[in-house]
Amino acid sequence: MKSEIIFTGTELILGQSLNTNAQYLQQALAALGIDLYFQVTVGDNLKRLVEAILQASARADLVIVGGGLGPTEDDVSREALAEALGLTLEENPEARLVTERFFKARGIEMPQNNLKQTLAPPGGMILDNPVGTAPGLALEHGSRLYILLPGPPGEFKTMVDGKVIPLLKKRLGPGVSVIKSRVLKLCGIGESRVDEILGPLLRGKNPTLAPTAMFSEVHLRITSKASSHEQADAMIDGMDRRVRELLGQHIYGKDGETLPEAVGNLLAEKKLTLAAAETCSGGYLSHLITSFPGGAEYFKFAAVSGYCGMERHLGLKIDPRKKPAEALARNIREMAETDIGIAITGEGGGLYPAGQGNITIATSFKDRTLSRDLALWGEGAELRQRAVQTCLVLLWRTLK
Amino acid sequence: MKSEIIFTGTELILGQSLNTNAQYLQQALAALGIDLYFQVTVGDNLKRLVEAILQASARADLVIVGGGLGPTEDDVSREALAEALGLTLEENPEARLVTERFFKARGIEMPQNNLKQTLAPPGGMILDNPVGTAPGLALEHGSRLYILLPGPPGEFKTMVDGKVIPLLKKRLGPGVSVIKSRVLKLCGIGESRVDEILGPLLRGKNPTLAPTAMFSEVHLRITSKASSHEQADAMIDGMDRRVRELLGQHIYGKDGETLPEAVGNLLAEKKLTLAAAETCSGGYLSHLITSFPGGAEYFKFAAVSGYCGMERHLGLKIDPRKKPAEALARNIREMAETDIGIAITGEGGGLYPAGQGNITIATSFKDRTLSRDLALWGEGAELRQRAVQTCLVLLWRTLK
Repeated sequence: MKSEIIFTGTELILGQSLNTNAQYLQQALAALGIDLYFQVTVGDNLKRLVEAILQASARADLVIVGGGLGPTEDDVSREALAEALGLTLEENPEARLVTERFFKARGIEMPQNNLKQTLAPPGGMILDNPVGTAPGLALEHGSRLYILLPGPPGEFKTMVDGKVIPLLKKRLGPGVSVIKSRVLKLCGIGESRVDEILGPLLRGKNPTLAPTAMFSEVHLRITSKASSHEQADAMIDGMDRRVRELLGQHIYGKDGETLPEAVGNLLAEKKLTLAAAETCSGGYLSHLITSFPGGAEYFKFAAVSGYCGMERHLGLKIDPRKKPAEALARNIREMAETDIGIAITGEGGGLYPAGQGNITIATSFKDRTLSRDLALWGEGAELRQRAVQTCLVLLWRTLK
Repeated sequence: MKSEIIFTGTELILGQSLNTNAQYLQQALAALGIDLYFQVTVGDNLKRLVEAILQASARADLVIVGGGLGPTEDDVSREALAEALGLTLEENPEARLVTERFFKARGIEMPQNNLKQTLAPPGGMILDNPVGTAPGLALEHGSRLYILLPGPPGEFKTMVDGKVIPLLKKRLGPGVSVIKSRVLKLCGIGESRVDEILGPLLRGKNPTLAPTAMFSEVHLRITSKASSHEQADAMIDGMDRRVRELLGQHIYGKDGETLPEAVGNLLAEKKLTLAAAETCSGGYLSHLITSFPGGAEYFKFAAVSGYCGMERHLGLKIDPRKKPAEALARNIREMAETDIGIAITGEGGGLYPAGQGNITIATSFKDRTLSRDLALWGEGAELRQRAVQTCLVLLWRTLK
């Protein structure tokens, strides 16, 4: 099945909103093995939307339009579909139920302009919208299937999952091809080194292996196309094994897993407790590690303050010339009686990351306290992020 | 000037990457007052990219292609442009300089496949890429301007700013129309109430006023189209004043400003100091408020821990039946000797947000300590976000 998807929305074409719906739907179509060749975005404009629908009809069997189902005059997707196909809109009782139910549940009388949302072309199948006023619509016309979906991301995604995917699965029948992906996540190694080590594996056609570099991490995406989920998974597993043979010691997780989660899980697994003294990182390290059950259980205490507050509440004298990060790491570990103490400090020892990227990270583990001076790029909030990310990489490598 | 933009990338059409380049370029075109009617995305496929370029040529004066300038076989933007316009690619000495310089700076010999990046159609103007191997390209052909840009977001955005905007400004000359926007950010009021209060203002054509609701905030976007920046600004200012007359007490900031920043600025303005005891919020509140210079200066200390650690290090006995959040807020304020103490606690008093959304927020201000039990939606990291966001709204309203 060939598909084409169209998004309508002036906020999209002006770049005021990021089109996350497109990505969501594209992933869903890929997972179903449905080919998508063109994705088109237009403003809320009847003429251009009609043009886009006609064009899509000429090159695809499945045309999905996202957005333009609201109650206002600039919402024109129903009208555009009717005009493109030479049909007339009429009131649809099922659509009326969906829209009325929304207002009823909130004890509000339905405004007159929402009546527009109860229109549909003859033969149109109403797709119930459990979270909004705009029903979706599916229409078989000639050999083509047209689907209209509301634009607000919560509604769009709910309807892709609950209505569109089941509808398409039924239409595809069994035995279709599927595209699946897995992302392996690495830290503590650069992209060029990954490239060098993987070499020819990066040039495979199916499955493909594609690296993406970001600050202190490299993500490797394995994508396979096969005639069944099982086969696609087996191809991915095979590539996964080959990558792990070459780079296993750098892989901290896969897909939705994050580095803080990997650190939290290692803490839990090794039953090691952690405390932190955060100056310029302002509590961000604690927040990240305790966002996952494992880390939250083994993370015991953090003091968040500038040097001045640390001196008062941790009962130590900070001498900026004598490795204050090490003193803080040791002190917080002793005070909280944990296995590991961590400290992150920056220029001036304040809570807001000051200066040009000079950050010190200290770790205290049993009677061994070490620190590392980093020259990071960025300032303010960005510098904080890089400092904490670097700290997580160090923690992960140490725990590993 | 009418424009059309095309993105090529299999990772885009499969939904593996979110197309942030599209938004970036769309915003730039809108700011220049250049109309954009269609944005098209295709995979890395020569035939379909040629089709998209031909189509764009039929309906726009300016055609911009993002992506497909890499050194590998599936990068086909140069080839597609040449084929669409009936031109032949030839080696371009300027392009060669750009690509060679990249490798020279890194002390690496240029691989053979990067030679592909030195090709251009005759008459093509090379756009220097200071941050990558792929030079961009501008080509005047007939009455149209074609621009090819590399796809990696860092390179794409650098070239939009440094090359494309200056080139287009020059081409547009003085006196063009501009589209400008401002977002007013509100908290402590729901979208339907905002709708009710603004009424007819929401139906204006120029400037337009559009609300977007998110958890505990409403954003109002004012957009104006005018023949000069000054005129566009004046129209926005006028609408801004009308909105402020009606909803001023709920507006905490505009555009890039965030609620934590607004809270930090109020702390600085009123010279009030703050300390926090964070259990289930894990340091996230401290992180957000100290991400801005003002807040970081007036935020003095936070203890991040479960009840057990709070008892040991804050020297207080927590009785879960006797409003532990209030005891924590009072205690942290006294201990840190600040004007305000805040505590956020959840079910069980642990660092990881447990259970079904029962969160307590307490504030201690001088001799007055109050707490508020919230029933929030979500769990885990999402519950934490909502708890902290609610705490920021309460803090902002209290400080205001």
